[in-house]
Amino acid sequence: MTAGHAFYDALTRPTCVALVGASDTAGKATSRPLAYLTQHGWPGTVFPVNPRRETVAGFRSWPALTGLPQRPDHVFAMTGADLVLDTIAECVELGVPLVTVLADGFVDTDPKGAERRHRLKSIIEGSATRLLGPSSLGTASLAQGLVLTANAAFADPQLQPGGVFVASQSGSAIGALASRGAEMGVGFHTLVSTGNQLDLSLGEICRAAVDDPQVGSFALFLENITGADSLRDFALAAARRAKPVIAYKLGRSAEAARLAVSHTGALAGDDAVADALLDDLGFARVTVFEALLEGQQFARDAGWRSGGPTRPRICVLSTTGGGGAMVVDCLAERGGQPCGPSPETARRLAEIGVASAGEALIDLTLAGTRYEVMKGALDIVLSAPEFDAVVAVPGSSARFHPDLAVKPIIDCGGHAKPLAAFVVPAAPDALQLLRDSGVSAFRTPEACADAVVAVCSRRSPRRHITTHRQLSGPPVLLDEAASYELLGRHGIHSAPHSVANPDDLPDALPVPGPVAVKLLSDEVAHKSDLGAVVLGVADAAGLAAAVATIRNNVAVSAPHLPVDRILVQSMVGALGEALVGLRLDPDAGPVVVVAAGGVLAELHRDRAVRIAPVDLATAREMVGSIVAFRPLAGYRGGELGDLEALAHAVVAISKLASTPDLAILEAEVNPLLIGKAGAGVCAVDALVRYLPDPRT
Amino acid sequence: MTAGHAFYDALTRPTCVALVGASDTAGKATSRPLAYLTQHGWPGTVFPVNPRRETVAGFRSWPALTGLPQRPDHVFAMTGADLVLDTIAECVELGVPLVTVLADGFVDTDPKGAERRHRLKSIIEGSATRLLGPSSLGTASLAQGLVLTANAAFADPQLQPGGVFVASQSGSAIGALASRGAEMGVGFHTLVSTGNQLDLSLGEICRAAVDDPQVGSFALFLENITGADSLRDFALAAARRAKPVIAYKLGRSAEAARLAVSHTGALAGDDAVADALLDDLGFARVTVFEALLEGQQFARDAGWRSGGPTRPRICVLSTTGGGGAMVVDCLAERGGQPCGPSPETARRLAEIGVASAGEALIDLTLAGTRYEVMKGALDIVLSAPEFDAVVAVPGSSARFHPDLAVKPIIDCGGHAKPLAAFVVPAAPDALQLLRDSGVSAFRTPEACADAVVAVCSRRSPRRHITTHRQLSGPPVLLDEAASYELLGRHGIHSAPHSVANPDDLPDALPVPGPVAVKLLSDEVAHKSDLGAVVLGVADAAGLAAAVATIRNNVAVSAPHLPVDRILVQSMVGALGEALVGLRLDPDAGPVVVVAAGGVLAELHRDRAVRIAPVDLATAREMVGSIVAFRPLAGYRGGELGDLEALAHAVVAISKLASTPDLAILEAEVNPLLIGKAGAGVCAVDALVRYLPDPRT
Repeated sequence: MTAGHAFYDALTRPTCVALVGASDTAGKATSRPLAYLTQHGWPGTVFPVNPRRETVAGFRSWPALTGLPQRPDHVFAMTGADLVLDTIAECVELGVPLVTVLADGFVDTDPKGAERRHRLKSIIEGSATRLLGPSSLGTASLAQGLVLTANAAFADPQLQPGGVFVASQSGSAIGALASRGAEMGVGFHTLVSTGNQLDLSLGEICRAAVDDPQVGSFALFLENITGADSLRDFALAAARRAKPVIAYKLGRSAEAARLAVSHTGALAGDDAVADALLDDLGFARVTVFEALLEGQQFARDAGWRSGGPTRPRICVLSTTGGGGAMVVDCLAERGGQPCGPSPETARRLAEIGVASAGEALIDLTLAGTRYEVMKGALDIVLSAPEFDAVVAVPGSSARFHPDLAVKPIIDCGGHAKPLAAFVVPAAPDALQLLRDSGVSAFRTPEACADAVVAVCSRRSPRRHITTHRQLSGPPVLLDEAASYELLGRHGIHSAPHSVANPDDLPDALPVPGPVAVKLLSDEVAHKSDLGAVVLGVADAAGLAAAVATIRNNVAVSAPHLPVDRILVQSMVGALGEALVGLRLDPDAGPVVVVAAGGVLAELHRDRAVRIAPVDLATAREMVGSIVAFRPLAGYRGGELGDLEALAHAVVAISKLASTPDLAILEAEVNPLLIGKAGAGVCAVDALVRYLPDPRT
Repeated sequence: MTAGHAFYDALTRPTCVALVGASDTAGKATSRPLAYLTQHGWPGTVFPVNPRRETVAGFRSWPALTGLPQRPDHVFAMTGADLVLDTIAECVELGVPLVTVLADGFVDTDPKGAERRHRLKSIIEGSATRLLGPSSLGTASLAQGLVLTANAAFADPQLQPGGVFVASQSGSAIGALASRGAEMGVGFHTLVSTGNQLDLSLGEICRAAVDDPQVGSFALFLENITGADSLRDFALAAARRAKPVIAYKLGRSAEAARLAVSHTGALAGDDAVADALLDDLGFARVTVFEALLEGQQFARDAGWRSGGPTRPRICVLSTTGGGGAMVVDCLAERGGQPCGPSPETARRLAEIGVASAGEALIDLTLAGTRYEVMKGALDIVLSAPEFDAVVAVPGSSARFHPDLAVKPIIDCGGHAKPLAAFVVPAAPDALQLLRDSGVSAFRTPEACADAVVAVCSRRSPRRHITTHRQLSGPPVLLDEAASYELLGRHGIHSAPHSVANPDDLPDALPVPGPVAVKLLSDEVAHKSDLGAVVLGVADAAGLAAAVATIRNNVAVSAPHLPVDRILVQSMVGALGEALVGLRLDPDAGPVVVVAAGGVLAELHRDRAVRIAPVDLATAREMVGSIVAFRPLAGYRGGELGDLEALAHAVVAISKLASTPDLAILEAEVNPLLIGKAGAGVCAVDALVRYLPDPRT
């Protein structure tokens, strides 16, 4: 442990804890921590603090923190939102390293909550006391028997210590995961409910846990994304030590995203942005709840130092056609590639009597229930270079002959390739045997495929890419011409254009026609909405008429807006249109988006989102993932467009995130016209909003 | 039982069975049926038939079927593919009502298999013997103790008799379902492996089971769709008796669809067609494996006489925010609408102290662990008219206080609205209590949401809609003009056109220009591929030039094709394009498809598929589901297109499926131009292929 992680010692291995507001009434949530500490045999010193009782559950009760004979390492404050502020102040006064706050009522969305939040922050600011919560259900470190939570599921006698570190924004989820883990035989190091993260963030807690040699891997239950920087510190540290991180995040649907707002008071991020951040951090994101725990062993087997391919190639090997086909279906639905053996591998399989026929499933049929057939086939596919992972699918015999059915799988240790087993029947003994032998085993085809694809396709986390910006002062909006100029300095071309004075129009078009005539203003972001754009203007007379039209329209739609500058821009031909944008997300940081132009792309949500900046390989991958660009890549004989130039433009715009002397809030080129292959791309509308860096 | 279901009696309650090829070696698959019959205490008479043994597992072994003292009702033939044909012939000779064939090797894709298939068919044709299989793993009827299968999972002492009838194309799936059902406390009436369905189809077997008063609901495990007519008979009978049908079908991914081909020899249907058929039959299709069994109780509670809304409105009520939000996410992802209470319901909830704030989740928080709060809230939402179903989500307390946590849910019986429970922690006792009390309970949020949405959004099955056509003789292809004529008789307009003789062209365009000039031929389906279409022709000179171009192109691309007729067609303007097609699917029957025109719609698979014919309401729903048509419905201020005329055209084309004097194999209008609202739709290319009905 480093000195910087004092809160972590207090969290996971305190020697003395105080329970403020501990109830003497069995069954009440606030009575649970004391009962659990007794039940799980925690050897440390515990002080119930409750001024209205002489004793609590047989322990002497203390009237206040300040009168305790010893300073606690960790105070679990279970009083209400108003009283708890005094408790926190006492902790600060005593120099208690960690206080966990159960109460909710600190959410910004209600004025009382905002007030409490403010007071709480000022109490702990600059002190030696770190705070977990508020709205934290507490923590449990099983090797210590330290079960310091109000969650009802921790009465479990089966809870096993082990290497999995659970950090959850939802308090109830730690109970769900603890109990499900107990059933699966998963051993936990610690389960911590992070609550509102007013002080200690989930990232900071996990970052400290990475340095703990007893922590092997991480399971995160997320409601939203906050603290991107501390999450990145954690992700990089975890990758360095090859400790896997699997994340389950709520809010995939708009309905659930709205819940996350009201529940925690945090901003509800677009799930695509959260997904981009989790991807950038190299976390394996699962969408099946149980995959969060069932996938832990598989993730450890897969190693965690470097990322994998976007579409991992998976070998599925079964003794039962139906069961194997379920896994194949689930893998393909999640973007994995279930695929058949190479000719060389097929030849080796044939030598041991296994026909494979190049299909996505190697079905050993009933013959595969013989040890030597399953073992032989597994050894061959586990050493075949064409697969990123192998899934073995034992059938009905696993229920009553678990030893026979899973022994060949257990005996396949020592290969470098990760191996998972999906057991088709209900076969708790077979699952147990596999797990006890360190083999990753799954109860459902959905969880199996989810974990395998998420783990195999994860990336290596990226290093820190932007410095944190001081965001203050009013944002600056650049007009279209100034936006082009800024973009031009970064290598993005725009169509030929010229700025004209509407009171002194030129006698001929200043740029080749036909032209678009637009109001030039640093006060409006959406000119078209004001009727301030006229297209297809052929000559000087048309230009004058267009300016008159714009004047008339603006006089109605925005009477106070001056029409003192006009942009005249050549209308150039193109094969297609893209939108490329950079945006500073309040939670995730700078994000770059590429989408096809037009309303259909919007309706189909045909876009790619990544954390900015991106390199050329990532930009190519983004462009390649957009369905609407496939015709420009030659699909169905479409004329080739300059998608390579588009990828370069994506890189350039994404790099605006690290512009040295200003903090870009938003930079959008829409549309960016895509020329024929080799002809480049060209902006015909653009918008930049930024905050000047106060240092300049 | 009716006389027509003699095979069903022999399948589910025979009094005497023979096991041909029964092995004396414990552990061999062919030894299992005898062991299981003994283990499960089947009271009937069993004859092992094995000429190479005196006894089998202590039973006297008989040398042949013909020498048995009594005619068996059901023969389970476990010999190899060649020997088994003699056994089947013996069954026919003896008048055995049912023979189940274990062997595979009857698949059309290999010549030997095709030969055996042919012989098998000729043996049973016209006989009183019905055949289950080949490639059937057998059957089990649990109330009888009749476990007549070679599947290893049936050694289970926990198997409970009950009302669920399982029919599976996969033999291994019956073992997986039996064992998982045993774990869940699901009671089975019968589990049957249908194999290749050479004689008895899955539909026919299930149709017979509908009449069995002891059968309450159905779980189907499908690898592909065959026998649409018998499935429809079954679906209609099941709906009449309000017996739910839930189906799980493999082949959602292209990879798994290919497996279904190689595995069963059946044609791999497009999964969209299978989905349309399952929908049309009113089956609830689930995609999470365990939802097939976990959903049975919920389906019974939901009633089964009539279908539900496309996007069912679901109330989620939890004591744990995280657990409830998981269900909300999963429901929304599957097309359900998790939604908040009406103002009136919110008012009633407020009266008992429950705040609901119009969100998609009613979070009772810890207060909801009190009986009266949960019970009161459930009673209110179960009687609220705005919800189609309610999901209750008990939290961690369900693990150690199952009685307290689930009692309010159990006590909510008697409401007309279906209620499901998702139990957030691992809480086997709580699940058991709920299930024993007849409450639908789910172990995972994914299975819960999957079953709830699938069941609530199912349709009522449609009555038989087409007569089965005799398909024989060479198909007839109509040329474009003749296709327009046929379509015109059914109310589909085409753009003005005229047929010209290329050797005697008119002096002026016969229809208003500009025109498209096309080769007219009943020998080619794709004129453009031959260079036989010239667009944008303005006058007679252009027409002559276009004909010369077509002659030159065809001379190269299809030298033997005569260029003796030319179609000249006005090019008319439109707001959008659609493809509307009818196709006779070999498995599902006539299918109607609507898609947006263009390569992007194809890439996005932006289409709607239904079994034909469809009524206007369904056609409107199809058109409404296509993303690319939303701008024509006014999205983002798009100009309104005549989507109502498009829906009428879909109905008209779908009705070609029941054209009285011919069997349409394919009718496609592509593109069908969509005019402004009120301006109608208009075909500018069309193709019809049909078989003349031999009766005419």
